[in-house]
Amino acid sequence: MKIVIQNGTIVTDHDIYKADILVEKGKIAAIGNNFTGEQIKKIDAAGKYVMPGAVDVHTHIDLQAGSYHTSDNFFTGTRAALCGGTTTIVEHLAFGPKNCPLQYQIDKYKVAAKDNAVSDYGLHGVIQHVDADVLRDMGKIVAKGIPSFKIYMTYDFALTDAEILRVLKRGRELHAVVAVHCENDSIINYLRSKFVAENKKTPYYHALSRPAECEAEAVARVLRLAHMAGDAPIYIVHLSTARGLAAVRAARAEGQKNIYAETCPQYLLLDEKCYNKNDGIKYIMSPPLRSAADQTALWAGLADGSINTVATDHCPFSTADKLHGKDDFSQCPNGAPGIEERVMAMFSAGVVEKKMTLNKFVETLCTSPACIYGLYPRKGVLLPGSDADIMIIDGAGEEYFHIDNLHGLADYSLYEGKKVKGRMDTVIRRGEIVYTDGKFLGRKGTGLFIERRIGL
Amino acid sequence: MKIVIQNGTIVTDHDIYKADILVEKGKIAAIGNNFTGEQIKKIDAAGKYVMPGAVDVHTHIDLQAGSYHTSDNFFTGTRAALCGGTTTIVEHLAFGPKNCPLQYQIDKYKVAAKDNAVSDYGLHGVIQHVDADVLRDMGKIVAKGIPSFKIYMTYDFALTDAEILRVLKRGRELHAVVAVHCENDSIINYLRSKFVAENKKTPYYHALSRPAECEAEAVARVLRLAHMAGDAPIYIVHLSTARGLAAVRAARAEGQKNIYAETCPQYLLLDEKCYNKNDGIKYIMSPPLRSAADQTALWAGLADGSINTVATDHCPFSTADKLHGKDDFSQCPNGAPGIEERVMAMFSAGVVEKKMTLNKFVETLCTSPACIYGLYPRKGVLLPGSDADIMIIDGAGEEYFHIDNLHGLADYSLYEGKKVKGRMDTVIRRGEIVYTDGKFLGRKGTGLFIERRIGL
Amino acid sequence: MKIVIQNGTIVTDHDIYKADILVEKGKIAAIGNNFTGEQIKKIDAAGKYVMPGAVDVHTHIDLQAGSYHTSDNFFTGTRAALCGGTTTIVEHLAFGPKNCPLQYQIDKYKVAAKDNAVSDYGLHGVIQHVDADVLRDMGKIVAKGIPSFKIYMTYDFALTDAEILRVLKRGRELHAVVAVHCENDSIINYLRSKFVAENKKTPYYHALSRPAECEAEAVARVLRLAHMAGDAPIYIVHLSTARGLAAVRAARAEGQKNIYAETCPQYLLLDEKCYNKNDGIKYIMSPPLRSAADQTALWAGLADGSINTVATDHCPFSTADKLHGKDDFSQCPNGAPGIEERVMAMFSAGVVEKKMTLNKFVETLCTSPACIYGLYPRKGVLLPGSDADIMIIDGAGEEYFHIDNLHGLADYSLYEGKKVKGRMDTVIRRGEIVYTDGKFLGRKGTGLFIERRIGL
Amino acid sequence: MKIVIQNGTIVTDHDIYKADILVEKGKIAAIGNNFTGEQIKKIDAAGKYVMPGAVDVHTHIDLQAGSYHTSDNFFTGTRAALCGGTTTIVEHLAFGPKNCPLQYQIDKYKVAAKDNAVSDYGLHGVIQHVDADVLRDMGKIVAKGIPSFKIYMTYDFALTDAEILRVLKRGRELHAVVAVHCENDSIINYLRSKFVAENKKTPYYHALSRPAECEAEAVARVLRLAHMAGDAPIYIVHLSTARGLAAVRAARAEGQKNIYAETCPQYLLLDEKCYNKNDGIKYIMSPPLRSAADQTALWAGLADGSINTVATDHCPFSTADKLHGKDDFSQCPNGAPGIEERVMAMFSAGVVEKKMTLNKFVETLCTSPACIYGLYPRKGVLLPGSDADIMIIDGAGEEYFHIDNLHGLADYSLYEGKKVKGRMDTVIRRGEIVYTDGKFLGRKGTGLFIERRIGL
Repeated sequence: MKIVIQNGTIVTDHDIYKADILVEKGKIAAIGNNFTGEQIKKIDAAGKYVMPGAVDVHTHIDLQAGSYHTSDNFFTGTRAALCGGTTTIVEHLAFGPKNCPLQYQIDKYKVAAKDNAVSDYGLHGVIQHVDADVLRDMGKIVAKGIPSFKIYMTYDFALTDAEILRVLKRGRELHAVVAVHCENDSIINYLRSKFVAENKKTPYYHALSRPAECEAEAVARVLRLAHMAGDAPIYIVHLSTARGLAAVRAARAEGQKNIYAETCPQYLLLDEKCYNKNDGIKYIMSPPLRSAADQTALWAGLADGSINTVATDHCPFSTADKLHGKDDFSQCPNGAPGIEERVMAMFSAGVVEKKMTLNKFVETLCTSPACIYGLYPRKGVLLPGSDADIMIIDGAGEEYFHIDNLHGLADYSLYEGKKVKGRMDTVIRRGEIVYTDGKFLGRKGTGLFIERRIGL
Repeated sequence: MKIVIQNGTIVTDHDIYKADILVEKGKIAAIGNNFTGEQIKKIDAAGKYVMPGAVDVHTHIDLQAGSYHTSDNFFTGTRAALCGGTTTIVEHLAFGPKNCPLQYQIDKYKVAAKDNAVSDYGLHGVIQHVDADVLRDMGKIVAKGIPSFKIYMTYDFALTDAEILRVLKRGRELHAVVAVHCENDSIINYLRSKFVAENKKTPYYHALSRPAECEAEAVARVLRLAHMAGDAPIYIVHLSTARGLAAVRAARAEGQKNIYAETCPQYLLLDEKCYNKNDGIKYIMSPPLRSAADQTALWAGLADGSINTVATDHCPFSTADKLHGKDDFSQCPNGAPGIEERVMAMFSAGVVEKKMTLNKFVETLCTSPACIYGLYPRKGVLLPGSDADIMIIDGAGEEYFHIDNLHGLADYSLYEGKKVKGRMDTVIRRGEIVYTDGKFLGRKGTGLFIERRIGL
Repeated sequence: MKIVIQNGTIVTDHDIYKADILVEKGKIAAIGNNFTGEQIKKIDAAGKYVMPGAVDVHTHIDLQAGSYHTSDNFFTGTRAALCGGTTTIVEHLAFGPKNCPLQYQIDKYKVAAKDNAVSDYGLHGVIQHVDADVLRDMGKIVAKGIPSFKIYMTYDFALTDAEILRVLKRGRELHAVVAVHCENDSIINYLRSKFVAENKKTPYYHALSRPAECEAEAVARVLRLAHMAGDAPIYIVHLSTARGLAAVRAARAEGQKNIYAETCPQYLLLDEKCYNKNDGIKYIMSPPLRSAADQTALWAGLADGSINTVATDHCPFSTADKLHGKDDFSQCPNGAPGIEERVMAMFSAGVVEKKMTLNKFVETLCTSPACIYGLYPRKGVLLPGSDADIMIIDGAGEEYFHIDNLHGLADYSLYEGKKVKGRMDTVIRRGEIVYTDGKFLGRKGTGLFIERRIGL
Repeated sequence: MKIVIQNGTIVTDHDIYKADILVEKGKIAAIGNNFTGEQIKKIDAAGKYVMPGAVDVHTHIDLQAGSYHTSDNFFTGTRAALCGGTTTIVEHLAFGPKNCPLQYQIDKYKVAAKDNAVSDYGLHGVIQHVDADVLRDMGKIVAKGIPSFKIYMTYDFALTDAEILRVLKRGRELHAVVAVHCENDSIINYLRSKFVAENKKTPYYHALSRPAECEAEAVARVLRLAHMAGDAPIYIVHLSTARGLAAVRAARAEGQKNIYAETCPQYLLLDEKCYNKNDGIKYIMSPPLRSAADQTALWAGLADGSINTVATDHCPFSTADKLHGKDDFSQCPNGAPGIEERVMAMFSAGVVEKKMTLNKFVETLCTSPACIYGLYPRKGVLLPGSDADIMIIDGAGEEYFHIDNLHGLADYSLYEGKKVKGRMDTVIRRGEIVYTDGKFLGRKGTGLFIERRIGL
């Protein structure tokens, strides 16, 4: 079936113009005017923005962390993604058993996703130790369409600086991007133990135990390692601080190439005062929510291009699970939901409140993540030949974030009760209308694993 | 008649993809695949780049300067433009009689262009004195589609700092861009007089009389004036030095908005050693050719976005006229041709020699000049609804610059004998094939005056 | 007669230590302990600071400006200087008749000072036009111990950029420092005329007519000219703005040498709100008083060494004269007194309020001005062999600034009624006690013209 | 006995002047002229520089490292120091037994020094683990005149980031300076193991195993930790790279206070090409010798004040010991002699070759180290009341570095055969002539332990 999206305002990362989009066989067949013919379904987008389907390159929708499991599975998580305008995710794998081969978790996630996912999806490999086998397997995995790997500078499987250097060098050889969770493990462990020992266990101490400088130091350090590795491609996940952003800018100013930075809606929209709320425990994530000054810096970083992408780090735990940290923040599973709220929350706070342009919105939520991680030009853009992944946003509409209206299994939203300006009208994934009129229309298991490839 | 450009690789300022372009009624009707139907002329662009027609926002094709007149008129100059891939120019007006109203020169140029131009064209107003009438007339002229004005910090009609400030403030009110020729008049006049008095009159002293710091000082000064005027939009023409570029970067780094910078192919491809050639007099222009280090800095400035556009400052005088400066550089009319060579010279030296990407090439020669000067989205892009101004470049071809092959009336080329990689295959202006197979096919007088408008 | 200053705390630009100073024949004979012998007058400085006599390198104590004359003459002005701790001044000459030779004003001032001055003094030449004679005479004047010249970028005898360049080049040849009043003349004249035409004539418009950016632009420009002149020695007088300071720092950061910057107590202690007082006219000076943010920046500039000296620009006009500007700021003679208040005002606001260290105080008020202008090591330091110019400050004392207690002929003080912490105890000039117990003890005409010489 | 040093040119960190120095009871009694009286020994310093005795705040003269012991003991090492103009050292303690109390090594060194030292000396505490006892003991040790501690980021007793943070916080409380050996332990260990495994064991691989970025990263990291600790006082020892220096400058540019940096003569005078010499093993030290570009950067850092001090890291091992690394750099004890050569090597390469001024020479070798480490004003300056520690250098003389002429027990010099301009004429320690005419005149065991105190 053909579809033509008519009368809308097309917004790309660089242009805004009026034209119609002809969709055929799941692809964008043409953009222009006067597409006629029989058997064409017409979608009237008059007065609305027609944008590429959003891409969320940082999700944990099906993650086992110790004794906790995230609320979502691949069906519910990607359903929530689609209903929020996100037509493709790239999932960060959970850690596997100690010393497991690099392929181990990939196989597990492929099974978990198949027959369940409704959005399209890719996977990032996760590296939890470094040896000759792992480095060799990185090549095999890249060859199978997974040209990106996640590493951690904190948590149980934190890599040492030397291990990170080896991964980055190998990444550079393979044209693979290494995504890094940057926090100084030594300082954080010390502060957390200290606070717990001093019986300072309320949620606010979670934030105090992971100060901004811990992020900034780790960002600066890993960028130096990437430089030592020949300006290896490196992607800083969930940047949350002005100081960390400054480290990114400083490295680029010295001429270092291939640096990418991501932030998340929660670091732009919420701040550390949330930890003093009654339900402060719900906001426990790492890095923690930061100061208002950090928020301002991050918005500026988006506006000037210092930050490339906005992803979610979607990692929902049930309220029941979170409450294990009620009396001791250090016992609370880290993470929070956000996959469905991302697009409209950013549209409202960013575009409507004039903190970012429409083009920048598309760039950071759709096009840049696709380019950086090798989904472009199949995903993230509106070009003839691309997958017909499209979201139609009604800028004049409104939405309320309420847990009952959301489509994942998380039992709370960080933005509960928040009214946003703008409304997700329709979402199309490979030519199929999967969301419209507030209803999910997708079919379980129709999401595809997307082989990615990062060019030179 | 409809045209479809098939099988080519479309290059925009941000994307590269394969698709066909359907042209109808002088506009781009659609971009996509499988445009079928009768009465469609097909152009096969297989293996070639399909790009927006280039825009040259700095030309002097019909200029009287003292007793000298440029070689070209609006027919020959725009013919050369078209054959070089430039489908739109914005002409910088010559000075009129002392104290003439602002409208005076505009009227004159409109007459000169009408019935002659073959490319489309806009005009920049030229401000040669400042009073209440001139400031008022700026508003009238903007309303007629001329939202840009040229001012000079040197030459006979150099404005004072206070006059510049007043123009910039008015420009800001009107959303008009002020283009500035930045050189320190006082120092230049002193040095020139000094050299002439010392009988140092060879062409190389032209360069020595206008040192790099003279440009840099004037750039820095006028940017401060623009800042005083509330970050008024300002466009630095023909930036030629590393120091001047540094001044642009410094102002932006302090947060100043609405700064644009242009350079020209001659400052990227030629250097001051040319003045020591036998025909050194041919290279006399202002600012002069610079050092190799300046070239390197300018290429870097293009690559990192510090310089927004590449225009020509096309201002050809006959060799006979230039020779008036044979024994005394100060008697030589300033200026040189380049309108036809620009696109392919930049393609060869920039894209082929990997000093700029294909996207950056389109950005700086087509899209950015159109955006800055209010031609976008009609010109400078390949979008449905835009004018069908298209150039098709054969990246595998070759051209030689030889004065006999060029289509203007200039009797020499700065690049005479130079072999460039790449070949201008076909040029289309508003749906009309005006150049192909090395032949000009346009019809005199079919160029349109384009009313421009600069948005908020 | 010998003097020994005992038990005090000696403060130099870099050290603080306890020792006695033996003075003999007007010189410092030795610094140490146990200076015994007969016929030694003992001064007990126990609990007090013993510092080099202060040096004020920017005074106009005997200046004819149009129809106005400053309140002081060389006797009263230098008497005030001495009573305020300043044992040496370097006077900025007034303009002479148009086109007068460079020597003209120097001769006049030498006459005015001889038989009158009580502090020691030097002179800065003033350059009011530039031609071969002036450039030649610069050499003669340097040879006579006047290795510094003042030029203006505004006012009637403002030099053009080319003239400034020539002066700076000549200064570099001669190892002479060029002191520059930096304000953009064109903008100031425009704004002043505009305000007057709009009937905006209250004192506050004086400040508005000379905005911060006018200073910053002129500073930046003249530093570029100094750079063109081979990093010629240049001294920015009365720096008053954060933006101007930023221009100084930027030039140094690019590696430019031989840049010096001065500020004055009034820019550190008073701000533009003074113009809204009833007696706002008394604060009319150029540059004008600035914002509180500028004050903060200037203090920081002193602390980090970006600003080298604190001088007064002492230029007192009688209240009667100032009142000619009562109804029109543009008719008010520019300038204000301050020569006597400088040292203790800075001691109180700087040292006591911890905005500068004791060492920095001595550096900026005594040692650096002496070094920059070729008075060192005769003046500005406490070294064996130096002139015994010494001030003894009682840090625990207090003073009130009241016009009746001051020793010049100015009839008002900018700091009237201000209580300062610290008290000028004793001032010694070449071994002679010229001030103690609040009494002036000097003898008219005993001040010496000091030949200065600036080394390589 | 009194001594008067006559007719010399006194050089301090800021002044150069002619005066005599009267020495009495081991102190400087006075500086001036005409010191007469009986029983005064006269030293004629005509034509020579009279400077403060040099201070070397980074020595390892009596160090056990694994199975190796440095060549010197406190007698021979401080004898070499004195003969080289260094009248005070501050010794860095070797590591003690694992988990030994902080006092342990101090006691050991006090014994080793007493009855042996001929120069005066202080000690830095060495922290090899961190717990409550160590932190408490830091206070006790500071109270006993040892207000500085050394920590390592590499080697067996490398501290973790959290441990460093705790030490820095405690140091700040105590007004104690923490000296840090900055190299990234993880990367170095990896590279060293890798090279050894690859049989790349020549001395040059020592340098390759400790690349510049490893220093820079560690410097940047520890400066961030100092910032987290409230801008705790931190002293970077043996800075050797341009990148490390850039990290120091960057932290200061962000406003961080209390940062000090040291370099050593070997990093200024020798480069990594030494490792390719036949006796390359002799140059094995950590950090290693660097590139010529690093040397240039370090000289610039001294000149502009970015680097505060020049110390030696004197750590001599016998050639026999060094040769254990002949076939495998990783088996070679790290360190080299230099305590005697420092002053004249810097005088020749720095002052004579115009890379630093006389004042800067005194500042970096004498005054600044004394100030930073709490020896001032007793040491490092020529002020009445200070210890009469004086070196007299004959700028017109010459010296050859030859192992037979040196006064330590090292059996080679890094500068063997090098001819230096300038000659150490005489060295006085607390009023006693300990070196003159090339002869050591000191008496074993007369060196004093100097209690140090760092003010606010």
